[in-house]
Amino acid sequence: MVQIDINCDMGESFGNWTMGQDEAVMPYITSANIAGGYHAGDPHVMRETVQLAAEHDVGVGVHPGLPDKMGFGRRKIDASPEEVKDYVVYQLGALRAFADAHGVTFQHVKPHGAMYSMLSDSADHARAVMEGILEVDDDLIYLATDMNIYEVTQEYPDLDAVFEGYIDLDYRADRSLIVEQQKEARDPEGVADRFVSIATEGECETVDGDVIDVPADSICIHGDNPNATDLLEAIHDRLDEHDIELAPLHEIV
Amino acid sequence: MVQIDINCDMGESFGNWTMGQDEAVMPYITSANIAGGYHAGDPHVMRETVQLAAEHDVGVGVHPGLPDKMGFGRRKIDASPEEVKDYVVYQLGALRAFADAHGVTFQHVKPHGAMYSMLSDSADHARAVMEGILEVDDDLIYLATDMNIYEVTQEYPDLDAVFEGYIDLDYRADRSLIVEQQKEARDPEGVADRFVSIATEGECETVDGDVIDVPADSICIHGDNPNATDLLEAIHDRLDEHDIELAPLHEIV
Amino acid sequence: MVQIDINCDMGESFGNWTMGQDEAVMPYITSANIAGGYHAGDPHVMRETVQLAAEHDVGVGVHPGLPDKMGFGRRKIDASPEEVKDYVVYQLGALRAFADAHGVTFQHVKPHGAMYSMLSDSADHARAVMEGILEVDDDLIYLATDMNIYEVTQEYPDLDAVFEGYIDLDYRADRSLIVEQQKEARDPEGVADRFVSIATEGECETVDGDVIDVPADSICIHGDNPNATDLLEAIHDRLDEHDIELAPLHEIV
Amino acid sequence: MVQIDINCDMGESFGNWTMGQDEAVMPYITSANIAGGYHAGDPHVMRETVQLAAEHDVGVGVHPGLPDKMGFGRRKIDASPEEVKDYVVYQLGALRAFADAHGVTFQHVKPHGAMYSMLSDSADHARAVMEGILEVDDDLIYLATDMNIYEVTQEYPDLDAVFEGYIDLDYRADRSLIVEQQKEARDPEGVADRFVSIATEGECETVDGDVIDVPADSICIHGDNPNATDLLEAIHDRLDEHDIELAPLHEIV
Repeated sequence: MVQIDINCDMGESFGNWTMGQDEAVMPYITSANIAGGYHAGDPHVMRETVQLAAEHDVGVGVHPGLPDKMGFGRRKIDASPEEVKDYVVYQLGALRAFADAHGVTFQHVKPHGAMYSMLSDSADHARAVMEGILEVDDDLIYLATDMNIYEVTQEYPDLDAVFEGYIDLDYRADRSLIVEQQKEARDPEGVADRFVSIATEGECETVDGDVIDVPADSICIHGDNPNATDLLEAIHDRLDEHDIELAPLHEIV
Repeated sequence: MVQIDINCDMGESFGNWTMGQDEAVMPYITSANIAGGYHAGDPHVMRETVQLAAEHDVGVGVHPGLPDKMGFGRRKIDASPEEVKDYVVYQLGALRAFADAHGVTFQHVKPHGAMYSMLSDSADHARAVMEGILEVDDDLIYLATDMNIYEVTQEYPDLDAVFEGYIDLDYRADRSLIVEQQKEARDPEGVADRFVSIATEGECETVDGDVIDVPADSICIHGDNPNATDLLEAIHDRLDEHDIELAPLHEIV
Repeated sequence: MVQIDINCDMGESFGNWTMGQDEAVMPYITSANIAGGYHAGDPHVMRETVQLAAEHDVGVGVHPGLPDKMGFGRRKIDASPEEVKDYVVYQLGALRAFADAHGVTFQHVKPHGAMYSMLSDSADHARAVMEGILEVDDDLIYLATDMNIYEVTQEYPDLDAVFEGYIDLDYRADRSLIVEQQKEARDPEGVADRFVSIATEGECETVDGDVIDVPADSICIHGDNPNATDLLEAIHDRLDEHDIELAPLHEIV
Repeated sequence: MVQIDINCDMGESFGNWTMGQDEAVMPYITSANIAGGYHAGDPHVMRETVQLAAEHDVGVGVHPGLPDKMGFGRRKIDASPEEVKDYVVYQLGALRAFADAHGVTFQHVKPHGAMYSMLSDSADHARAVMEGILEVDDDLIYLATDMNIYEVTQEYPDLDAVFEGYIDLDYRADRSLIVEQQKEARDPEGVADRFVSIATEGECETVDGDVIDVPADSICIHGDNPNATDLLEAIHDRLDEHDIELAPLHEIV
């Protein structure tokens, strides 16, 4: 029996604007990365999303972003490590309060968009964020999207870290991801194959047909993929056959 | 020996804009109401203000406001009780994270400006906020600015509440306060007299010379008063003579 | 031959969040009320919406709102007449620049949501806004949603004003509108009947079956109505038969 | 007789937060770069600043910034040329409306902080902004802070451009400026010498004692310099002696 987590960005609606399909996706996942009100989300959306996660026993984490709603947190801002650290602490604390209000474990941190890229590109920024997390709560898990960041997490023995893999995007041979301009529907069976391969073998086929290591304990699914729920159903259909158990991050670490 | 707290709004700078005189005032007070990033403050200002409070053993609380920086949180917004509750939980959580990061007790909640007025005018809004606080952390103290709100706090036995008095504004006979358009320097000795009277007798003279009950365990000082530090020095000079000990809220409750 | 305008709120997307169905609706209308970046819209959305309007020869106006994206401009803010006036001038100027950039006439002003209600409730606020418009450009037309506001416009002989009617909401006998919590699909033929009745007779049937005067030169359609384009097609199908010509506001006034 | 303009950033207060000393500085300058509400300023501040400029016959221009109040527009944001263009058009239009409301000529555009640096570093961004300005109003003057940008303006024959010099900062030999972390008081006579040298000779001494060309028709003064008004008085005291006339940009171009 192998355990793996499925995580998805959630709570990216804002005021009267909706985004994603949180209610449809939540039943299939085990960890939710919930926006903290900077790139998306607001206090009401945060509460609703935490509550939805709680109903489905989904692990709750914060998905902090840069303070740029107009750019959805996808544009780098020339902010200092200390500024980014404080943005993470702020949003982490805000989301943790809603987790406390609904009696759920506050589990993990996964930076969003351009903030994630800034940490990947600058170890100083990454270290500042890790230190910020540890200052507030050293039970939190850092969900690392690439190896640059994963390696920085290893400098902090008190910080649990999990590496995540992608199955609805294609990998290049250097383990970088091919990000599409426009999300397109994916073949559910191909995505499920990839899920099984990463979960059971720690391997994934690249866009060129090579096989690379993807030592992931969590799989990220994009909720804004047009057929996200089809992909998730196909994945769930494979679990028994391959002796895979889905579990939230805090049960795996 | 009588114990009393002195509280002051703090951390109301924002980005490159400064407000107040936090460094000058902090040494004289025992509780700081720190803005939560909605009407004023930002993550960097919050961290700096918490750190400054910690250096002076000042109790740290959140001063949540309405999401209206352009109006400094001083304009009522027709928001529902649930919306206001979620604004408080959000800012409370954010500030608590900085308190945790600096190892200080997170002590109290005191709503700002128009949010305070909304709670005073609508018991539904006040109850929603009290319930939001209790959901997150029932060790927190509610710092009540008027009797309307204080009475609502009494519906919640799990919520500690403290009533505060004012000495740099004048009371009317009905215990309402005369708020000035423009803060003016006050006579330090007159303010210190009033401080002693509230601290030791629970009484204060009104603008018309009557004496009213002000059963306060905390005194609010306005840091943006032009001679705030003079007032605070005059107060400190009276402590020994009248056997008054200053103590942060969490030591009094 | 009778002339009438059809107006619709447009450009209410924001950053990565979309709202409404502007591309589908624009071909059917003659005037677009475009959000000015306060309650909705952003510079990019404003440019795209102006461009779309220009392609369909639709008259361009500004739909200014209160500075409250989180509440979509639907919550009253206790702002002074001068503040609201300045919010209108700011957004009006911003949208006018995009109209100039695309070589289209900048035609009208129609306040949004809670700002509209504030003007309807307070003649002081309404007057401040009318004066703000006249200071900037006295060729602009004020699109008045109710009689309270229409009457204030009549105090300003230099300000053209047009009264609008509603056909996808129901009127009460006092000419107030029954606003639904959740927009529901409407019967296209019933809506088209109402359109013809207002356009040709200046009359409309109320929810109770009475007939009231609706002396409108423009008809407002809600683009977020689930079957908005069906309603608009049904309306267009009646034009020839009833000798009605659609024309943007500036051709009617 | 030689003519030169003195420009200064103005209107950088926001809500209840004040910045700069606009009332003290305005009487000494001839062009005001007024913040457009993105990095600083708000509709009320914009109106007040335009009115103050009008009272002193100071030329009114817009000082557009990036949408980042928390960073005061001083942090680069990875925004596209089209996004930056639209931010400029938006703020330009908004300020122009207040200029119209107060009956003053709307004269020039000078980007702020990190937006200025982005245009200096990327000709694509600079071109997009120039084109945006020309689309809205080809009578506007571009106030160019460095030669990179000035050269881009020369690609647009319809766009008037003026190069500005600095006298309260030091130049390096390559005509770059040494920007201080903390503004310090400057020697008024030394600053006035430099003013005369640029105005009459088009030359300035560098920090190393070399002499470089500074072919400026406008001189920028920092209003947040601690002794800005002393510097401005020293400059004004030299005007007669050296036959220099101060004039707003639109009288020079």
